[in-house]
Amino acid sequence: MDEHARRSGGRAPGMSTRDCPFCRVIAGELAGEILDEDERTIAFMASEPATRGHALVVPRCHAPDLLGIADDDLAAAVAGAMRLAARAVDRLGADGVNVINGCGRAAWQTVPHFHIHVIPRYAGDQLRLALRSPSAGPEDIAAVAAVLR
Amino acid sequence: MDEHARRSGGRAPGMSTRDCPFCRVIAGELAGEILDEDERTIAFMASEPATRGHALVVPRCHAPDLLGIADDDLAAAVAGAMRLAARAVDRLGADGVNVINGCGRAAWQTVPHFHIHVIPRYAGDQLRLALRSPSAGPEDIAAVAAVLR
Repeated sequence: MDEHARRSGGRAPGMSTRDCPFCRVIAGELAGEILDEDERTIAFMASEPATRGHALVVPRCHAPDLLGIADDDLAAAVAGAMRLAARAVDRLGADGVNVINGCGRAAWQTVPHFHIHVIPRYAGDQLRLALRSPSAGPEDIAAVAAVLR
Repeated sequence: MDEHARRSGGRAPGMSTRDCPFCRVIAGELAGEILDEDERTIAFMASEPATRGHALVVPRCHAPDLLGIADDDLAAAVAGAMRLAARAVDRLGADGVNVINGCGRAAWQTVPHFHIHVIPRYAGDQLRLALRSPSAGPEDIAAVAAVLR
């Protein structure tokens, strides 16, 4: 396993840009509702929106995931996500925004081209996240912290 | 309503740093399992972990949310999140990682000090996100795109 595959936990399979749906949107070969673009990134509507206004920001340069993206592309994608988050509040009347990256299939990444979800949130919307692990006490947390430090 | 409150949709109430639990962790007044720190940020374990290794990255300088954080602090927090994501894979054997920001109470933000969740993911873990809106068709998506452009 090469270094990238090792760091990526074998998650992101190799994919040529010809087969990558986001590269095809960037190239204009697949239709997309483009929202914004700059030198490094492009933003378009999610095809299966979680809420009204759900958008994606992706780097033009194919990168499989968060562990494989260049720093400058990541910074540009985060800046693009911030712009869309502000628009969601200003123009759509969103009550909040979730900015989410999934790195790896175990983290809900379905397209192996790095992308940031910008999900406008509305009071009372139907998006739900089961966030609490039932089994972690203070000792468990301290033990994991020692591994991560 | 002032400019920040307007852009924040009135979400982030004013909070002095004395009352902010994350500022108190940063100041050493509240215990935290500190994982990492640099000039601009600090990372510590979430007190109610979604999965094994769930951590938070926060700027040292109090900012209520994504729409109120300085660019340099955001960049540093994102870099810190990347470091922890790589460690989750390398040291905890995570199969993936979710990096999540909640901006506003409607987006699951419970502490009004900007923070990035770094949530290691494991194949078969119990974290669930109901991501699809049942009602959005292509026309709906195109109509919202026109507002966001």
